[in-house]
Amino acid sequence: MQKGILIVLSGFSGAGKGTLVKKLLQTYDNYALSISMTTRQPRTGERDGREYFFTDKEHFEEKIRENGFIEYANYCGNYYGTPRAYVEEQLAAARDVILEIEIQGALKIKEKFPESLLLFVTPPSAAELERRLVGRGTEAPEIIRKRLARASEESEGMEAYDYIVVNDNLDVCVEELHSLVEAARRAPVRREAFIKEIREELKGFAKGAEQ
Amino acid sequence: MQKGILIVLSGFSGAGKGTLVKKLLQTYDNYALSISMTTRQPRTGERDGREYFFTDKEHFEEKIRENGFIEYANYCGNYYGTPRAYVEEQLAAARDVILEIEIQGALKIKEKFPESLLLFVTPPSAAELERRLVGRGTEAPEIIRKRLARASEESEGMEAYDYIVVNDNLDVCVEELHSLVEAARRAPVRREAFIKEIREELKGFAKGAEQ
Repeated sequence: MQKGILIVLSGFSGAGKGTLVKKLLQTYDNYALSISMTTRQPRTGERDGREYFFTDKEHFEEKIRENGFIEYANYCGNYYGTPRAYVEEQLAAARDVILEIEIQGALKIKEKFPESLLLFVTPPSAAELERRLVGRGTEAPEIIRKRLARASEESEGMEAYDYIVVNDNLDVCVEELHSLVEAARRAPVRREAFIKEIREELKGFAKGAEQ
Repeated sequence: MQKGILIVLSGFSGAGKGTLVKKLLQTYDNYALSISMTTRQPRTGERDGREYFFTDKEHFEEKIRENGFIEYANYCGNYYGTPRAYVEEQLAAARDVILEIEIQGALKIKEKFPESLLLFVTPPSAAELERRLVGRGTEAPEIIRKRLARASEESEGMEAYDYIVVNDNLDVCVEELHSLVEAARRAPVRREAFIKEIREELKGFAKGAEQ
């Protein structure tokens, strides 16, 4: 059986990643979502096992020693990591695993798993990004400015991704993301078994032709 | 304006490339087909400017000297080449240009145009390829064996292509090819203008945030 595809989904805060992932999971049954583990405190409304698996430093570091993460990082004194077991189980079961992580994590994944698919979601423009962040009405102007400054930093890494997907219309964007995953399935690196088989078979025919 | 994509379509003889290309051209208006030039004699039923542009050795070699081909080769004493002018005009006009050429030509194109998209079309199996070649009823058994032997050779180069597309059902395969082209449009190398613009815009916002 063909293994699943390891998909990294990144994008500016406000690009709509969360909604896109939810819709992908609802619409297609080939996807599984990896939940990161963190040592930071849950925020209001966050639930263990939904936004993150929340744990303490001791447990996280034990898992690091056991090679229990496919990537992890420390930001502002808190650990964030992608637990290995779930990802490997799902890939082995031919499911395409989505990691919603930021660029440093994405680059680590690409280094360790060159066959992973790196997707970057962006609004159609920076002005639209600002409008969306303001439109939420829940964030202080200072937070919005911080997010835009962070987006500016993140935009420096866009070339590292396999594809840049503009989220202008949710349904269209979901279809685009899905078709990029389907495209990735046709890369030779994921057709190895098929190539090997047809090559052997053709060799047989060619031998027959020589006789 | 975003330039078109240079598409190389290769595949085993009998994989259905000709029909696929025809259908792509009929169904979508973003494609243009490059016609190769050759010094070989036209076969029965072939028309100048449809299968090939037929010319003589002298004219072909003059065009080589004028850098008039984006790639050319000599097989069995005959030249085959892709005229440069048409390809460049069409790409500049944002049309995606299809070159239906074999693997050596494909590799030359990829070397000169790293952003080109290399697609390899194959039947679902070697047995099916043989069935199709036999089913045509027009080829002598010896020709069929030669084609299978040639397919066996060509299969060694499949990994050089960006995508391997199985042609099991014509309409499905046309959609697949088209979606691979659409996917390619989302690679960062073809989003340069967009990336540059959003980056500049975000930088402006980030500066505003610092003040």
